[in-house]
Amino acid sequence: MAATPAVRRAPRAVQDLRVDAAALRSRIEQLSVYGRPAGGTFGDGVSRVAYSDADVQGRRYVMDLMRAAGLEPRVDPAGNIFGRRPGREAALPPILFGSHIDSVPNGGNFDGDLGSLAALAAIEACTQARRETRHPLEMVVWSAEEGVAFGRGLAGSRIVAGDVTPSDMDAVWNGLRRGDAVRKLGGDPGRIMEAVRPKGAHHAYLELHIEQGGTLERSATPIGVVLGIVAIERYSAVVTGFANHAGTTPMPDRQDALVAASQLTLAVRESVMRTPGRQVGTVGQLDVSPNAPNVIPGTVRLTIELRDLSTETLAGIAADIRARAQAIASNTKTTIEINDLSRNPPAVASPEVQRVIERAASAAGLASTRLPSGAGHDAQMMAQLGPMGMIFVPSVGGISHSPRELTRWEDCANGANVLLRSVLELDSV
Amino acid sequence: MAATPAVRRAPRAVQDLRVDAAALRSRIEQLSVYGRPAGGTFGDGVSRVAYSDADVQGRRYVMDLMRAAGLEPRVDPAGNIFGRRPGREAALPPILFGSHIDSVPNGGNFDGDLGSLAALAAIEACTQARRETRHPLEMVVWSAEEGVAFGRGLAGSRIVAGDVTPSDMDAVWNGLRRGDAVRKLGGDPGRIMEAVRPKGAHHAYLELHIEQGGTLERSATPIGVVLGIVAIERYSAVVTGFANHAGTTPMPDRQDALVAASQLTLAVRESVMRTPGRQVGTVGQLDVSPNAPNVIPGTVRLTIELRDLSTETLAGIAADIRARAQAIASNTKTTIEINDLSRNPPAVASPEVQRVIERAASAAGLASTRLPSGAGHDAQMMAQLGPMGMIFVPSVGGISHSPRELTRWEDCANGANVLLRSVLELDSV
Repeated sequence: MAATPAVRRAPRAVQDLRVDAAALRSRIEQLSVYGRPAGGTFGDGVSRVAYSDADVQGRRYVMDLMRAAGLEPRVDPAGNIFGRRPGREAALPPILFGSHIDSVPNGGNFDGDLGSLAALAAIEACTQARRETRHPLEMVVWSAEEGVAFGRGLAGSRIVAGDVTPSDMDAVWNGLRRGDAVRKLGGDPGRIMEAVRPKGAHHAYLELHIEQGGTLERSATPIGVVLGIVAIERYSAVVTGFANHAGTTPMPDRQDALVAASQLTLAVRESVMRTPGRQVGTVGQLDVSPNAPNVIPGTVRLTIELRDLSTETLAGIAADIRARAQAIASNTKTTIEINDLSRNPPAVASPEVQRVIERAASAAGLASTRLPSGAGHDAQMMAQLGPMGMIFVPSVGGISHSPRELTRWEDCANGANVLLRSVLELDSV
Repeated sequence: MAATPAVRRAPRAVQDLRVDAAALRSRIEQLSVYGRPAGGTFGDGVSRVAYSDADVQGRRYVMDLMRAAGLEPRVDPAGNIFGRRPGREAALPPILFGSHIDSVPNGGNFDGDLGSLAALAAIEACTQARRETRHPLEMVVWSAEEGVAFGRGLAGSRIVAGDVTPSDMDAVWNGLRRGDAVRKLGGDPGRIMEAVRPKGAHHAYLELHIEQGGTLERSATPIGVVLGIVAIERYSAVVTGFANHAGTTPMPDRQDALVAASQLTLAVRESVMRTPGRQVGTVGQLDVSPNAPNVIPGTVRLTIELRDLSTETLAGIAADIRARAQAIASNTKTTIEINDLSRNPPAVASPEVQRVIERAASAAGLASTRLPSGAGHDAQMMAQLGPMGMIFVPSVGGISHSPRELTRWEDCANGANVLLRSVLELDSV
């Protein structure tokens, strides 16, 4: 009955919508206080490990911001924070977007924080512009993404994707029961299964994140459109030689496990690099036994990690590494045993969402390029429930998980604006 | 005045003298009991670490044998056991020979034990044959050769050679003060400086030892004439790259310290093997940081150990390694810093004593070959006080410092007989 009030302005067109870049920056700076080293300043990194007091304080800060923006934060049984802005059509599933705010020990101030606070900024921009959407807009701050505690990453989103059993809450890490850790975040371990969402629970999932690699910065491209999150395959290799006296054993008679392991380490790099592509491979962990200056190494244990979007590419590399390992073992009079450690499948970003992000970047006057994500993200869990897309912004020097992690403020704002435009474009399809 | 008793037989000629091989074997077997693993048998190795109860028991057993052979054992302030059989000419210095009976943890039953018990057998053979010598014959069982306790090997002979100060007795290892350890062996730490002997204290020093390498066995040569004990040079290398995310850092951008360290490990082997010779080089210890499967190694620390009789050869190899390290650092975008850790000079065996040993082997109908000792021995300390020579016998498979250490009984007897003949020939010059 009431007439539309005269003061009500028409909603702005999509092309005019912008996040508040200054507010985004000041909130990233303020969030960095929770977990900052004593006496440090912004840029000295952060230790906001999941379930720590700093994590609880940071979450409280974000929830206060959400309330101020008119979102009532809801903590699900897994400790994930959701905030929903209603849409016009009540029957439609929400467009979900967000990231995490927990960090690795001595980590940086952009990994997760940017995507979480940009999600809030996108909703605020719609609200301030009185922009209605068909779908509800739902922001999320996932719990315990980094996998420092309890040994496995993507903990909150993993539960929502259904990879959980009630007994998971009984795990103990550093004397802390996981159920108690989840409760500390406001979760409800006794109802943990109620955190699981069904397929189709969201219209699409979007996540803005720093690249963590140096591809965008090197090519001076402000926006990355993520093709998907790579598969991760890990192997353990045990090289067995013969530990003997380093003074009395002539060079030709040696069965030096470290010589063989060194050849294997270089072979992994060669196998990965022999074909063009963005696949990566790493020997990151290597332990020598008996590890004394005057004893020829008898045993070396090492890990081999391979990542690519294509499992076929990885299978080819793994086969090549195995063949090279056999030749190395034969030439060095050692044995090399390679066993599977773990295998994470790739998560492909929805081609349609990729195109939406590209158009959004283009409309904002920003160049974009497609690239895989070499790191794991909560988005890979959400890809199991519906269409997923990720937006990357440049990491200076490709550095992350370090106090030196840095994304320029302009790039932060660009990413948030592309997120906002992508959300609105997804709302229309 | 008294006529030579009618029952007195003429001494046997040198060529007829033999050690009691059966007694030598049974004593090596009996000595193996002290430090044997519970429930084990001969061949299961021994842990007779210096200053342990097993060491004390083994020393007591050897001293009992010495007394039975008419030698009054004397323990010097450093815990070394000496036993002297007088010679005809009281003014002459003794011919000194022996070895050690302490072992590494989980070591073998021939390293040291053979040379110690063969020394006793050689004196017994002279006594039983009523063979007089011009020089006193002095056997020695050196204390703490292996360097397990207090971190430095050749402890007993090092003191006799003068490398000692009173404050050395204040060192603590595993809660044990070194003075108390020496006292446990019957030594006298308060008078430790009195253990030092002057140059010329012995006419010559001889030591029979297992080769510990496989040279003699491979060439089916029963006797090795040691050219000298190699110099040992140790270096530490620190490879500094940049620890970064193993998923997000493209292969060409990496500064992988382990890739560089692997190349360096192989370069050490190549440098050592590029010229003919018996020099050896080993990367025995290598530690990776942060050492996680999903992080590109940022720092690797490793040791480089080089051994050869010629310090010129070692200097050439070290220079070549440094040059290769610079090229590796440049190619891998890392830095490599190589620093000196320690430098032991070589100890050359007296050419005259080498010839004496060769003639003794030849007279016994045994082939011999000259070879360096790649391992350290008490003989290198005695070389500082007078002419030194060493006799090696074959190690099956070149294995030592292991329960699998083995020297055939026939080779043990051959070595003891060559020791005996060498002692007697040295007595005549």
